[in-house]
Parts: sequence; C-alpha cells; structure tokens
Amino acid sequence: MKKFASDSVCDYYETEIRMDVICLRYYFELVDTEGNTCYYGNYDFTSTAPTDPDRMFDCPQTLREEEMLAVPEWAANKIVYQIFPARFASSRPVDESKWYQIPIDFREDLQGIIDHLGHFKDLGVDVLYLTPIFESPSTHKYDTVDYYKIDPGFGTESDLKELVQKAHALGIKVILDGVFNHTSPDFFAFRDILEKQNRSAYRDWYYWEKMPLICEQGKKPNYKTFGYHGGMPKLNLQNDVTADYFIQVGRYWIESCHIDGWRLDVGDKISHMFWRKFRREMKLVNPEALIVGEIWHYAGDFLNGEEWDSVMNYPFYFSVRDFVAEEKISASKFWENMGSLLGNLHTNVIPVLWNLLDSHDTDRILSICGGNKEKLKIAAALQLLLPGMPVIYYGDEYGLTGAGADCRRGMAWDARYQDLDIYQWYCTLIRVRKQYRCITEGTTSDVQINDAEGILCLTKEWRGEKMVVCFHAKTGQVNFPQFIGMKNVLTDTSFDGIVKDYEAVVLYQRLAQENEFI
Amino acid sequence: MKKFASDSVCDYYETEIRMDVICLRYYFELVDTEGNTCYYGNYDFTSTAPTDPDRMFDCPQTLREEEMLAVPEWAANKIVYQIFPARFASSRPVDESKWYQIPIDFREDLQGIIDHLGHFKDLGVDVLYLTPIFESPSTHKYDTVDYYKIDPGFGTESDLKELVQKAHALGIKVILDGVFNHTSPDFFAFRDILEKQNRSAYRDWYYWEKMPLICEQGKKPNYKTFGYHGGMPKLNLQNDVTADYFIQVGRYWIESCHIDGWRLDVGDKISHMFWRKFRREMKLVNPEALIVGEIWHYAGDFLNGEEWDSVMNYPFYFSVRDFVAEEKISASKFWENMGSLLGNLHTNVIPVLWNLLDSHDTDRILSICGGNKEKLKIAAALQLLLPGMPVIYYGDEYGLTGAGADCRRGMAWDARYQDLDIYQWYCTLIRVRKQYRCITEGTTSDVQINDAEGILCLTKEWRGEKMVVCFHAKTGQVNFPQFIGMKNVLTDTSFDGIVKDYEAVVLYQRLAQENEFI
Repeated sequence: MKKFASDSVCDYYETEIRMDVICLRYYFELVDTEGNTCYYGNYDFTSTAPTDPDRMFDCPQTLREEEMLAVPEWAANKIVYQIFPARFASSRPVDESKWYQIPIDFREDLQGIIDHLGHFKDLGVDVLYLTPIFESPSTHKYDTVDYYKIDPGFGTESDLKELVQKAHALGIKVILDGVFNHTSPDFFAFRDILEKQNRSAYRDWYYWEKMPLICEQGKKPNYKTFGYHGGMPKLNLQNDVTADYFIQVGRYWIESCHIDGWRLDVGDKISHMFWRKFRREMKLVNPEALIVGEIWHYAGDFLNGEEWDSVMNYPFYFSVRDFVAEEKISASKFWENMGSLLGNLHTNVIPVLWNLLDSHDTDRILSICGGNKEKLKIAAALQLLLPGMPVIYYGDEYGLTGAGADCRRGMAWDARYQDLDIYQWYCTLIRVRKQYRCITEGTTSDVQINDAEGILCLTKEWRGEKMVVCFHAKTGQVNFPQFIGMKNVLTDTSFDGIVKDYEAVVLYQRLAQENEFI
Repeated sequence: MKKFASDSVCDYYETEIRMDVICLRYYFELVDTEGNTCYYGNYDFTSTAPTDPDRMFDCPQTLREEEMLAVPEWAANKIVYQIFPARFASSRPVDESKWYQIPIDFREDLQGIIDHLGHFKDLGVDVLYLTPIFESPSTHKYDTVDYYKIDPGFGTESDLKELVQKAHALGIKVILDGVFNHTSPDFFAFRDILEKQNRSAYRDWYYWEKMPLICEQGKKPNYKTFGYHGGMPKLNLQNDVTADYFIQVGRYWIESCHIDGWRLDVGDKISHMFWRKFRREMKLVNPEALIVGEIWHYAGDFLNGEEWDSVMNYPFYFSVRDFVAEEKISASKFWENMGSLLGNLHTNVIPVLWNLLDSHDTDRILSICGGNKEKLKIAAALQLLLPGMPVIYYGDEYGLTGAGADCRRGMAWDARYQDLDIYQWYCTLIRVRKQYRCITEGTTSDVQINDAEGILCLTKEWRGEKMVVCFHAKTGQVNFPQFIGMKNVLTDTSFDGIVKDYEAVVLYQRLAQENEFI
C-alpha cells in the first residue's frame, strides 16, 4: 500500500486490486518503525494474523457497484466564475455613484452577463455559477417567490436561454443556484396557508407549530424558518408532494434552458432522502449535470455517490485564510488540511471540489488579506495551481475589495477600479494551469515544506512530465513572493516560471537537501 | 459530557441538549489528566477555543428529524428463538434413526412448530425466527424457487397463517427469512432466460457475462452467483422491475399472513438503495415490522435509520466465543468489544441487536465450548443478562451439540437427548431477565473487571433499582461458575441470585475495593 495523504491525525494509504473472486477476504498488517507488528481485520486489532476468514474484512461489504460515485467527466479541474447577478453587469445605463457601494438600487441583468461573455473567455473561465435568478423581492434572491419565473429585473426565460446557448458556443457551462430549503413568504403555497390557514391544501408544505400561522414583521414566527426572522419559511420536504414540486423545478431548468447543473443552497439543512431523489431525477434528465451542495463543514456524508458530485469547499477557504491571510497556521498544517480532504473524500470528488477564496457570504479575499496584494496573489496561486475546481468570485480578478454586505458591490468594469497587475496574475495562473495539465492531473510524488519560511513545494508527475510547484506564503521574507514558480525538471526547455522560475527550482533543491531528499 | 462506552481505541461520551434555537454552534474542550487543553470544532483540533461560529460544529448538519432512527418499540430486549424448520418438529411420524444426524430425509413442517408453541411459552420466548420456508429443493431453502409458495414439505399458506395467529394469541411474534440476493436456478425468471436466452423478458434480472447463459453442473457459471457454484444466481436489484418484485414479496407476507418482520439474508451483498426502498415499503404496510439484516461484520452503515432496525450480532458471537469458549481474550477485551458496539451504533439499535451464540451457519455453542457445560452456561448468561435481543438457536436450551452441517440436526424432543440442567439454566436466566428489567433497561453505572480471574461485574441502575450482575468466565478457577449472580444492592429483600447470590456480592465488593471504587 502507498501513502497518498496525511493530516494531523491519520495517514491514508491506498492500493489497487483486480480480482476474479466472489468475495475477497483480507486484513491489514501494520508494522511500526521499530518493527512491531499488529493486525487489523474485521474492525478489530489483534496481535496475531487473523486466519479465520470471518475475522477478516470482506470485500463485497463495500464493493456494491451501484454505490460507486461517478461525477461528470467534463467538470474535472475546470475553472468556475461566480456571479452575483444583481451587482454584475447591466445592459442598461446605471447610476455610477451607487455602483461601488453596498447594493441598494440596481439594474443589472442577464443581458449584461451575455454582453460580457468575452471577459470569461479572456480570463479562461470554463463554468459560470449564478446565485439565484428567480423572482424574489430581495437583492440576493434567496427568498424565492416563483421558481418558474426569472426575476423581471434580471430578464426573461428567453434571456437565460440566450445566455446558456452563447456560453455553450464558447465552451462555457452554466450552473444555477437551487434554493430548496426555504421560500419567500410570498411563495404561492405559503400565501395560501396564510389565507386559508388550516383549510389550505398546502398546510403540510411547511413546518408550523400551531395554526393560525403568524407571519408579521417583528413577531416571532410560529413556523420553522431559515434564520430567526420569518422571511424565509422552511419547506417540509418530508412531504412527498412538496419534494416532488422542487424536483420538478430542478428538472425544468435543465430541460427547458439546458443549464449544466445546480448549486444547492444550505445543503446540510435538507435530508439525505431529498438529495438522493434529487440526484436520481437530475441525472435522468442529463447524466452530465453537475450537482454541487453548499456546506461550510466537512461534507463527506453527502458525497458518497448518491447525492452530490461536489461541494463548495469551505474547508479550503478556511485553510487559505488561516495560512496566507492571517498567517496563523503553518505550511505543514495547511498541507495537513488538504490531506484531510484527500484522505476522507472519495477520489473522484477531489478534481471537482469547488475551491473558493471567498463568496457572497464572506468578505472578499483581498479584504480578508487586509488589502495586501502579495497575500492575495499567493491565495490565488493556491486556488489555481492545486487540483479541484477553483471558484473565482466576480471581481476578485480585478482586486475588488469589500467586507460584510459590501462583498456584493458592483463589478469593476470601470478601468479606474481595475487592478491590472492582479488581473494579469490571474490570467497567467490560469494559462499555466491549462498549459501544464501535470499541475492538476499529476500525482504528488514529493512534498517539501519549510514552516519557518512558509514554503510549500510540491513535485507533480503525469505521463512522463515532472514539475515542481512552489508556494511561499509568508510575507516579510526575503524574495517574497517570487518563490511561486514551477519547473519541468525533466526537460529544461519546456520551463515556465510564473515569476522567477530559477529561484523556485533553487529553493526546491535547497529544501530537498535540508530534508535529505536529494 | 458523560463517558458511556470505551473500546480499545476510543472513549465515547454523550450528553443531552434541549434547545430552542435555529442552529446550535458548538465545539468540544478536551482536557487531559495533566490539565492540558485543546479544542475540537468543525473537524479540526486547535489550541485555542474557536470563537468564529463557522469554526464550530453546526447542529442542523446532523439534526434532520426525518433521518432519526426509530425502531419498533415492542422489540426492545425481547427474546428470539431461531428455528431451522427442516429439522425442528414434525406433525407426522419420523424415522427416529435419522433424527439426530446430519439432515438427509425429513418430514418436519409448520404444523410441527404450531404443535410446540407451548415450548416457547414455557421457555419465555417472545419472537420466533424461521429460516426460509418458501419452495426450494434444498434442506436449507436459501435457494428459492417460488417466493409466493410455502414449501410443500412444510405445509401451506394456511399453516403459516395458523402459526402466526396462534403465536400472536400467546404474545409471540413471527419473523421470516428474506432471501433477496439470489434465487434458485429454477426460479421462473432464471428458467426463462435459460430457455429464451437473449430474447427473455427477464434477461436483466441477473448479472450475466455473455449469452448464452451456461448453467450446468461442474461448469463454471458465466453469471454472478452467491458462492462459486452456479446454484444460486445473484439477482440484479439495480433493475427496478426486479427490485420491485422482491419488495412486493416482502409486502405480501406481511399483508396476507401478518408476519412481524423480516430477517434479511446476506444483507451486505445488496445495496443501500434496495434496503432503503425495502424499509420504506415494509413500514408502509406495518410500521411495527422489524427489519433485521445479516452481516458478519460491523453493520453501522446499514443501521442509520433508513435501512434496517437491527442486525444479527456476529461481533457479539465472536466476542463470547473468544472470551468464554476459547479463553483467548480477557474480560476487559470482551467489554471493550461490547463498548465498540455501544459507542458506534445508534442508541436505539442496542436494545434490538440480535445477540447470538450460534446459528445455522456456525457450530453449536456447546460444540464451540468443546462440550464444556460450564462454559455454555456463562455464554448463555452473557447472552441473556446483557441488553439486546438474545437469539436462542433451537435446541441450545437442551444442550444440543453439532458442528459443521451437523449444527442443523433434529431438535431434541426425545427426553434422552435433553440436558435438563441446561434447560433449567435457560429458564432461570430468562425468568430473572424478565423479572428485573433493571438488568436490560438499566444504565451501567459501574464496571469492575478482574482479567486474571476472568470476572466482569456490572452495576445497573433503573428507576430507583440498583443491581449488580457478575460473570465469571474462566474455568478452572475457584468457585467457577458460582459467581454468576446478581443482587439488588438497595433492597436486600428483593434479592435474586442465580447460583450463589451471596458470593456474587462479596466478589463485587472485593473487586470494587481492589479498584478503590468503594
């Protein structure tokens, strides 16, 4: 067996077995560095090898082929761009004075996104993810009034069709945001209950404590909600009729507008039962649809094959924030955190994990970095030079800032607000990522870490290529941030350093020597 | 938090929280014996307390009420009696010379079981579990030909109805054996494929490598099977039509004959998808139906609320065998093994675990004990004085022996083959178990163990009662096996010792003193 990941608690080993038997019985022999041996079979540690087959592990127990996880192949390591539609782009004149403030008034729309498709192509984006676009009174639109209607401020179904069609023509996929945990109180079913109370045909669509249902500003709601105020009543998806309604919503937008998948809001507040049914139905309509849940924690129990393909990788976000922005964890700890995901999640999930630096629910990465551009650059390098699906939050590529609700400020279309140095950095990282597939597809054959200097150097190997990728995350060090670079160590001629290639290799060699690797 | 279980790797703690919040954020503070502290929140260990709510655990992530496990209340701690119908009882004359041999010829039937209902009542049995009774050419009947027909040798559907009705009248439930992983090659669907090959409407009911399907004695089957010979072709339950057929079978016997549940053969060879659907449908027909899977290993992933209520507890079987029969693990290790189940399985599962000492798939417990009756008595005491559903394999109560296929020998109805001392022991254990619910319902407030002497003493508390249950598992020790006993330590008058009550208490006190407990 070969160790493929480590974290602060475990080492993770793997091997591949091809077998022509009905049932493989096996156990593990564990040998420590001093040569002491023990055995692990049938969930029990023993001092002698278990010879009774019933004391061994039993392969069919875990190998039921219908339970294997398959994720859409197209998605692996692709780059996502997250758009908050209310503050992205307008096809109509806007009030410039309000553009770079916390959103109040807006005229942004789907046509504005269509108008900027060239921007995504220039940057190298493969997938657009739009936060909710269905009818809703709010800016964020997570309180949906009508799941079958594009918000009139954003446009029409025809606009969405045009967006998807034109994006597809450029090889860009489109993912929408599915909010199935709760609705607006103005959603027809909730309105019907408010009106008819106990006599409503929709009374079991929500969780109420007692009738009459009270939904008034300032009063504590007597029904389950998302959050403490009553503005987002929680749907009762245990009711099959309700669940089916929202599964039909999911099907509809795939079938009618050919969207390429769903990002699922507050995924961990909804049961596994619903998600399994949701996946089954979406994959019937389009087996290539990508299903991505939102969880801020470890999401392994939703990623076992029957529910989601991927998750918004907030553990990645926290790790980059701690390592780069706040410098409160070491390079070793950062790498352990990555190892924890690698070791615990299904192998197929890793290349489709939505690795984010920020989102509409966090401060912007440049603000998290206290405005320090060098830190932002390292963060972006970690996002774009590690496997997974990097999710670039609109405007990060121009060095947009914003904390709290201001993280949703208007997109920096005006050149005065664009940091072209940062933009160039993003373009280079993405170009390099796409040019050298070894970076994302390769196996990590060596890791060199220097915690004192905040340096992480990975050797990647893939189909005869061998590259070194170095990150230097500690500001205030000599040469920072020059040490982010990479080199094809087999063929010097195909070298591509991002900043100072030569130093990256020298650094790697020094680290390797310190660790007696070479 | 309070520690409620331990095994060789982990301690398990629990607490109960009542909350009126939308979302509970929490973390754990861990303090070692030297006062060192660390914190565990959001799947990460830190040296300082996580103050950011997003770094804490998040309650709704695991608290989705529809995922909670509910098991039938009637089943908790009830006593099961397993019958192998082909060798249990006949309502017609039998050939005495063959009765106590490996089964060859038999005339046993359901009417024979009905005739002996008094035996179960005398013993104190609450549930009958019958291995398969549907039409099949074999003695064991795990290769079913017709799932809608009682094997003609056993009787008719009317006999089953009578058995269930009469058992119910005595307060005894009846569980049947569901073999849904494979069929006989004579099952109609497989026969149809053999006949029509590629043109069969049932071609997707099995897993074949290529057509034509070859099913001939001595030839390697070119289809998936249970075991290496071709006699039990494996069903393709990924095919919804096939899955639905067997789910209908499951429903049918509950609806038509009012059986009280299913024991599910080779449960881990069938996918979670099928079992979830199976549970859903059975509980629709009878929410009180008990669903018990067969797995020889740890079964936690089938016991999370959506699949089975319980499992045949082979880890219990292995632990008793190792501790009592083979004396190769200590009392501490035995208790750790129990702790591993207690710590890892859902709390609701523990009182319904099918704790077995043997089955139709193992040697008989007395044979496992090398014929040593004292060992058998301790094994039975562990089975009947610990929480769970003890499963008594027919004849164990009379000291029947048998290894290999001979574990299925004819029931000891003839007084010459009945060990009445053992029978009395079973009756006493069961009477005591039922009389003092503290034994099974109580919490374990103290555990005293002496590995040198093989002694395990548990203090149980329940509704003001406090009892001590002592097991002495090492033969060849002074006073063995007198030290199995129990005492209500609060009210001396209600004392009930199985063998020598006084010594049990003295022993407990000595152990407690040695461990500075008193």
